[in-house]
Amino acid sequence: MSSSLGVLYRISTWGESHGAGVGVVIDGCPPRIPLNVEDIQAELDRRRPGQSKITTPRKEDDKAEILSGVVDGLTLGSPIGILVRNTDQRPSAYTEMQQAYRPSHADYTYDAKFGIRAVSGGGRASARETIGRVAAGAIARKILTSSLPDYECLAYVKTIQGIEASAASLENPQAEVIESNIVRTCDPEAAVRMVELIEAARGEGNSVGGIIECVVRGVPPGLGEPVFDKLEADLAKAMLSLPATKGFEIGSGFAGTLLSGREHNDEFYMDQQKVRTRTNRSGGIQGGISNGEDIVFRVAFKPTATVLIEQNTVTNDGQDTTLSARGRHDPCVLPRAVPMVEAMVHLVVVDHWLRQRGQVGA
Amino acid sequence: MSSSLGVLYRISTWGESHGAGVGVVIDGCPPRIPLNVEDIQAELDRRRPGQSKITTPRKEDDKAEILSGVVDGLTLGSPIGILVRNTDQRPSAYTEMQQAYRPSHADYTYDAKFGIRAVSGGGRASARETIGRVAAGAIARKILTSSLPDYECLAYVKTIQGIEASAASLENPQAEVIESNIVRTCDPEAAVRMVELIEAARGEGNSVGGIIECVVRGVPPGLGEPVFDKLEADLAKAMLSLPATKGFEIGSGFAGTLLSGREHNDEFYMDQQKVRTRTNRSGGIQGGISNGEDIVFRVAFKPTATVLIEQNTVTNDGQDTTLSARGRHDPCVLPRAVPMVEAMVHLVVVDHWLRQRGQVGA
Amino acid sequence: MSSSLGVLYRISTWGESHGAGVGVVIDGCPPRIPLNVEDIQAELDRRRPGQSKITTPRKEDDKAEILSGVVDGLTLGSPIGILVRNTDQRPSAYTEMQQAYRPSHADYTYDAKFGIRAVSGGGRASARETIGRVAAGAIARKILTSSLPDYECLAYVKTIQGIEASAASLENPQAEVIESNIVRTCDPEAAVRMVELIEAARGEGNSVGGIIECVVRGVPPGLGEPVFDKLEADLAKAMLSLPATKGFEIGSGFAGTLLSGREHNDEFYMDQQKVRTRTNRSGGIQGGISNGEDIVFRVAFKPTATVLIEQNTVTNDGQDTTLSARGRHDPCVLPRAVPMVEAMVHLVVVDHWLRQRGQVGA
Amino acid sequence: MSSSLGVLYRISTWGESHGAGVGVVIDGCPPRIPLNVEDIQAELDRRRPGQSKITTPRKEDDKAEILSGVVDGLTLGSPIGILVRNTDQRPSAYTEMQQAYRPSHADYTYDAKFGIRAVSGGGRASARETIGRVAAGAIARKILTSSLPDYECLAYVKTIQGIEASAASLENPQAEVIESNIVRTCDPEAAVRMVELIEAARGEGNSVGGIIECVVRGVPPGLGEPVFDKLEADLAKAMLSLPATKGFEIGSGFAGTLLSGREHNDEFYMDQQKVRTRTNRSGGIQGGISNGEDIVFRVAFKPTATVLIEQNTVTNDGQDTTLSARGRHDPCVLPRAVPMVEAMVHLVVVDHWLRQRGQVGA
Repeated sequence: MSSSLGVLYRISTWGESHGAGVGVVIDGCPPRIPLNVEDIQAELDRRRPGQSKITTPRKEDDKAEILSGVVDGLTLGSPIGILVRNTDQRPSAYTEMQQAYRPSHADYTYDAKFGIRAVSGGGRASARETIGRVAAGAIARKILTSSLPDYECLAYVKTIQGIEASAASLENPQAEVIESNIVRTCDPEAAVRMVELIEAARGEGNSVGGIIECVVRGVPPGLGEPVFDKLEADLAKAMLSLPATKGFEIGSGFAGTLLSGREHNDEFYMDQQKVRTRTNRSGGIQGGISNGEDIVFRVAFKPTATVLIEQNTVTNDGQDTTLSARGRHDPCVLPRAVPMVEAMVHLVVVDHWLRQRGQVGA
Repeated sequence: MSSSLGVLYRISTWGESHGAGVGVVIDGCPPRIPLNVEDIQAELDRRRPGQSKITTPRKEDDKAEILSGVVDGLTLGSPIGILVRNTDQRPSAYTEMQQAYRPSHADYTYDAKFGIRAVSGGGRASARETIGRVAAGAIARKILTSSLPDYECLAYVKTIQGIEASAASLENPQAEVIESNIVRTCDPEAAVRMVELIEAARGEGNSVGGIIECVVRGVPPGLGEPVFDKLEADLAKAMLSLPATKGFEIGSGFAGTLLSGREHNDEFYMDQQKVRTRTNRSGGIQGGISNGEDIVFRVAFKPTATVLIEQNTVTNDGQDTTLSARGRHDPCVLPRAVPMVEAMVHLVVVDHWLRQRGQVGA
Repeated sequence: MSSSLGVLYRISTWGESHGAGVGVVIDGCPPRIPLNVEDIQAELDRRRPGQSKITTPRKEDDKAEILSGVVDGLTLGSPIGILVRNTDQRPSAYTEMQQAYRPSHADYTYDAKFGIRAVSGGGRASARETIGRVAAGAIARKILTSSLPDYECLAYVKTIQGIEASAASLENPQAEVIESNIVRTCDPEAAVRMVELIEAARGEGNSVGGIIECVVRGVPPGLGEPVFDKLEADLAKAMLSLPATKGFEIGSGFAGTLLSGREHNDEFYMDQQKVRTRTNRSGGIQGGISNGEDIVFRVAFKPTATVLIEQNTVTNDGQDTTLSARGRHDPCVLPRAVPMVEAMVHLVVVDHWLRQRGQVGA
Repeated sequence: MSSSLGVLYRISTWGESHGAGVGVVIDGCPPRIPLNVEDIQAELDRRRPGQSKITTPRKEDDKAEILSGVVDGLTLGSPIGILVRNTDQRPSAYTEMQQAYRPSHADYTYDAKFGIRAVSGGGRASARETIGRVAAGAIARKILTSSLPDYECLAYVKTIQGIEASAASLENPQAEVIESNIVRTCDPEAAVRMVELIEAARGEGNSVGGIIECVVRGVPPGLGEPVFDKLEADLAKAMLSLPATKGFEIGSGFAGTLLSGREHNDEFYMDQQKVRTRTNRSGGIQGGISNGEDIVFRVAFKPTATVLIEQNTVTNDGQDTTLSARGRHDPCVLPRAVPMVEAMVHLVVVDHWLRQRGQVGA
């Protein structure tokens, strides 16, 4: 169950970074959804390594093959299997790490849990695992847009370390602006400084983190469950399941704790036939259920754990030692994490949309 | 599925605020765990209304009855059913809210989802729903402490609006200090000011929020799953499933994004036979799996939505209107949320502990 | 998970035979379904002990209380909790069985599994556990009939030991005929002989078994899943989960293995706009999915294990011994199993109907 | 969820008969289990088409590739992905069936459910789907035998149409005898007549069915759950999820309904330190839980639906028509179903074994 997510749209990802490949099986996809491999490839290309000078230079085409569940460009309703072969593996870069645990990485905890681990490439702890998520998310988006024409999910970099996108740029982010810069921020001016910062970190063998914000438009009122499977709870889980994440907040988030209830509440008003709120401190979800406003949340990503600077650590046989990591790593995960965040949103929303249709009807 | 949580230790809560009662069924409890109703009652008393001058004056004894699964003070391994009758209901306080939606409450979204709602008492959106969680959490704690003698989970109020517990008090929080004040903060001096603030808010018919921090000690390395069911992901979901939560962060959290990788990493060292880290920015979890250090996280709670001040809103038949809520409400949910946070931790940890025993062996 | 069933309409039963009570929580019920406690009570009365001279004389009113999920006669979409108090307990009848295992009963295996068991009343292995199923099934039937007006499920006794209902009576069984006799067979003449046989068995402290057949009408084509969750697979599991069942067959069943493919196949034809089959050896399901014909299956129930005749057995500390059971037991479970079979059908069909609506749309 | 099975050892199969390939993902495999592709291939070879003169002549090597989850011959605890490419596809054989529904096949019901189907090769309704089950079952067996050295599961043909293996041969079936004949029956003499019957059926374009019996040895007492997930209930579901199955019975089965309770009960006795039963009408399971005796059950398989004889049917646009199927089909599925039955047993038992370890400890 470690690698499966969802109730009705259920995905199971598989694959180690340096094994034969990675992929996903999607169980529960509705039938007769138009789907081509290009729909998937476009999203994989956004998360692929080597796409710009600020990502890892690992060269992977990440070409997706649809193995099942689709005939003549339409989904069958049966499981969709997707395979991406691994091609650029350099296990020699992992020689030292076979014994010495990288600080703040998953090396030690995998050994503690399983008594064994795929040393080369980081195994399941590699960002390659997210290929299956992004592929499944691309299909989820097709399902959503086929029924909810206004559905749109946009993630973008809000901060890289101390550099923040301008307040104005965060007001109404647009896809073309975000994709116009290699950081994937909504503020092209801040993007220049962010790129410089990332390149400087890489030059030192160091790394940086930051915050991704995400706005989801066109989600109808009524999605999400009242108690454990609140929409924000499932989003929080989805985001914290991404590598390198340390925090999640929705709407007013942590800053909202500084307001009084009177200040914080989102007053309702009628906009023609629609119930709307004047403000959106709720972040589009109230009592676990979407209210039709934009869903807005933020995710904190720590600086990449694998740095090329010598650090103290221990070996897998219990000796103190030092380690300077080698290998090809992202000095900052956020530019490639943007499509991952979006994919996780698609996965959560489509599952809740199908569940709502099941329990209550369309 | 809306009201069920867990894979091996699976709970299903039920009950509306103003119905016959609330409760929980726990499926998958290990057999032969010593359990008395007092184990459960002690935790229910910590979350019960009317326990102090800063909580709602609603008078509920919240007396738990164990309906099944326990004989002669030992669990049987069969489902444990727990019932708490509702006693103090004043549906008349909800007359206005039958038609007018409370801003930032779940009234509108329940109607949008189900086309019907239990108006009186707030139905499932009431904090009474958490009784089942707290009861199930008390049993989870008994299971954990019977196998993991060092297991301890302490939640405490870190801030109420702008008032923060002192850094010193947050260093090494202790249960008796936390329980010594009605706010449940680890800083008795800050507690005085926090109480004043909460009482002032109540006096105005207003409300305040804040941040709860939680430290979990004695969790062995190896709990949590590598991909979707990361331990921090399941904690995030558990916390965001509590009413009034807006954010979750673990270890360094959002502030950690301001550090470089070199600064952020937790170096390993050997402490006798144990692998330890010098710092704990990871918050006790790496790659989704516990590393044996204290698990530390924070949860943001918004100010209570139900305020007794007139606000603009709409009716369930689409008319603009105004509403001043009535009824007995907590001006600040945090003091009573402390045992809820702890209960959710117990539930998440016990489930992962049983899953680890299932997949890997004890 | 031992006591939970279903994906979208998910039930969790709880309760030991001699504890405080038994019951069920239903998670996932659609909202706005008309529901009164009488809907549930009517089915509980059909399965209740003491209803006739051929059932156990245990006196239980089995009065159901709806604890949650229903307001003003309509379901809310939130969990429905149902409680039935145990009233007539005679633990003294179980004194011998505390130590000596009843042959072919669950006494030994519960001890082997859990290292503990609720001796008195048989705990979860008692037929009282099925109260929760029957209650949840009654609600499932309300959901189904509210959307599928032709839906009808009829179970009836086909054989008691060697006595069989006539072929003619099995052609087109009707509810009023089945309920007109205390055996619940479709053949009133055979009923007389069946009653005599059951009474004779009881007179000897012995017991008898038999076969229940069930026909389900009005299930639309398209319910069921192609692979593991085939409709017949879920029906088989549901039936084999009932106490005392030893076999399940659908359509032509075991006898169908004596035919050739040419003889066995059900030819299709058009009946106005509907696809129909000339014969129904498929039993209404093809490839795991309903085809719109009547679903027809049979379930084998063994003779009750608890007999009042001395038998060899062993004690829970490993000594050979003999045991003559005491207590009040059904000499034949089939009359009371009829509503249990129907309840399990309702549970399986409603879950697949909601799943179909979720994945494919109504 | 249609294509996923299991709670802790969870498999998801995927793939259409005439698509790129078929396969399975296994989530929850314990770590450090020795595993080579040969372990899997050996079982796939037993279910592969073209293995003898009485199976379909479709030529498929069914070569398995392990894509993930195994390094250096040991499982990692992460998901195991397995891929088998499809190679011998002849879609032209399905031209007629694009429009005309094969009687008693899944053609019509897939269309009724999904509004689309993979005509060529039968899609998911093809026996090729079971490749993933057999591969996952082979791994399950490795897990079981690594902890339960006496574990052995033997399935064998008991009858083909009217021809039955001798009572003597059914007493104590042995693997080498079963594998010594192409029917996979435990009676080599009956095998000769069974082969003749199958060949005769094929000669007429007709088909035959029969009964497979299965004995599972070395299952410790205590596996299975008391209520819905009874071991026999999960076995029943597993068997009825196999293509062409119409019935399941355990122990005394349907014939057991002819006995009285006194005759039917299995008396206990002590065999050194072990609790044993003199007879085994329970079939190794009591109250849903294994009792340590051999688990014995039978499964009815109907004659193959696809016959090469003209039959009446309808088209997908609602016209009466006739159809003589073409293509390469098994005239009798039982010889190849033997390894499928065994695989399903391994899957059910390993899941319950891991669940027992999780809830109760090893």
